[in-house]
Amino acid sequence: MLDYTDIEAAAERLLGVAHRTPVLTSQSLDAITGASVYLKAENFQKTGSFKLRGAYNTVASLAPEERTHIVTYSSGNHGQAVAFSAAQHNTPCTVVMPSDAPSVKKAAVRGYGGFIVEYDRITGDRAAVAEQVADDVGGVTVPPFDHWQVMAGQGTVGAELLEDTGPLDALLVCTGGGGLLAGCTTAAAHLSADTAVWGVEPEAGDDTQQSFAAGKVVAIDQPVTIADGQAMRAPGKLTFSVNSRLAAGIVTVTDNEIVEAMRFAFDRLRVVVEPSGACALAAVLARKIDVAGQRVGVTITGGNVDRARFASLLVDGA
Amino acid sequence: MLDYTDIEAAAERLLGVAHRTPVLTSQSLDAITGASVYLKAENFQKTGSFKLRGAYNTVASLAPEERTHIVTYSSGNHGQAVAFSAAQHNTPCTVVMPSDAPSVKKAAVRGYGGFIVEYDRITGDRAAVAEQVADDVGGVTVPPFDHWQVMAGQGTVGAELLEDTGPLDALLVCTGGGGLLAGCTTAAAHLSADTAVWGVEPEAGDDTQQSFAAGKVVAIDQPVTIADGQAMRAPGKLTFSVNSRLAAGIVTVTDNEIVEAMRFAFDRLRVVVEPSGACALAAVLARKIDVAGQRVGVTITGGNVDRARFASLLVDGA
Repeated sequence: MLDYTDIEAAAERLLGVAHRTPVLTSQSLDAITGASVYLKAENFQKTGSFKLRGAYNTVASLAPEERTHIVTYSSGNHGQAVAFSAAQHNTPCTVVMPSDAPSVKKAAVRGYGGFIVEYDRITGDRAAVAEQVADDVGGVTVPPFDHWQVMAGQGTVGAELLEDTGPLDALLVCTGGGGLLAGCTTAAAHLSADTAVWGVEPEAGDDTQQSFAAGKVVAIDQPVTIADGQAMRAPGKLTFSVNSRLAAGIVTVTDNEIVEAMRFAFDRLRVVVEPSGACALAAVLARKIDVAGQRVGVTITGGNVDRARFASLLVDGA
Repeated sequence: MLDYTDIEAAAERLLGVAHRTPVLTSQSLDAITGASVYLKAENFQKTGSFKLRGAYNTVASLAPEERTHIVTYSSGNHGQAVAFSAAQHNTPCTVVMPSDAPSVKKAAVRGYGGFIVEYDRITGDRAAVAEQVADDVGGVTVPPFDHWQVMAGQGTVGAELLEDTGPLDALLVCTGGGGLLAGCTTAAAHLSADTAVWGVEPEAGDDTQQSFAAGKVVAIDQPVTIADGQAMRAPGKLTFSVNSRLAAGIVTVTDNEIVEAMRFAFDRLRVVVEPSGACALAAVLARKIDVAGQRVGVTITGGNVDRARFASLLVDGA
């Protein structure tokens, strides 16, 4: 179970470690949407994404004797976050990453002192590789989303936003495995019970939307999308149990709509957003949910993107 | 004369109009420089640059009967800022711009309802064109830097930064015509008298550095630099009178060093900085001034840059 007290405990652990990221507003965004939009800018978070919160909370909540070697698997941001969190606890760390992960993300893991074990994104099973590594080194695996302490940490994103803005009509949350969504729905249920919390995922990776429709966890083929951090085959069992109960629903955005959101952030906000971090903003800009006249929270979840890839998306598109 | 009370009066006029922009910090920047660096992020200012402050302050301080038609000349950011400020006062505005100014800057002026008169950057005299336009329409010219109210407005950048950080050892200020530097030296003299305030200009456009060396205003050939907002032939008479008295000195950075600063801002800060806005950061990164162990303020003055140009500078360089 995930309770608001878990999010409060995570906030305590994160004090002095995670940035309390700013809430951005934009008159042009409000004019375009007809809403009052509050952007929670986790691209300014340490390690460049919200993933720090769940990773650090999980590592910090381990008993010292459990914290011998931390292992994880991640398309990138969670890997960086776990490597940073392990380093903060002077604990060795191994990250299982797809061989085609952006080089900036691999370099960052190494920069935090983490080891990398590569696997093939198409044929490999990253969780199985990670469990094998954990067995070999006698370590503990910190999964990217389907873990109560990870969800509790991510929930501090929603809690901080709602503390800063007061009650919101709607909250749009970038959704991959569903950890951030589970944390944010739980935070909103406590702090602003009338907020409709929506998950937003890439159209090609609509595993959570399909799972909502089926009323159970559904797995899809490996998605192909520019939103590499959201290219999940299925939501988590634990995250789905929370989200299917508390979320208003799931909407999807195309890769082109994600690029338009990245361009808007560049042109008008002067901030760098990675594809996976831009989908909730894309949903507002593409009017996937009617927010006219409302007070709306939007998560911007990360800013880790290669220069060349950013330049190409900005100029040539998806 | 420019007095701190002029800056205080400007701050009053700007209340509720200009953003109080955030002060950014970065552990990696501090690690690289060995200093505690505080970045005043005017790329998040309304209209995308600090120029709003001086422009709005000047337009707002005109008597209503003087405010019939506002005219200015600008490589871009000042033009946008004046157009915005005139629109806020329901006053028509004409901006004299070089024909090769970035299209995003022309579009922004038109977006604020401003008229544009183009001139040739190499052969034309923009101030003379503007005076002619002002004569024709019976308007008032708001120059980009050599005006006491413009300098007073820009001084609120330094005042806000020093209010937020407390006393600093050094303050590095992006310098074109010298309006921001004059405002910041005056603010620092009042709020933090021991701060060494340095101007930073592009190496190719070292008119202020040459003027400091000569002890009088020196004009150079039209500079060719990626920092289009700092491609001045000479500092202002009024700005030079303030800066030669109060500034610690002038340092220069190359176009390549400016690009490296833009890349650092992209990679590590996840913010978009235009070339002219990055030169003070470039000076710190390239160790043009020894700031080790110091508390250092740095102005980031703007974020108005075409997508294609930004992409090209990020990937291919200057």
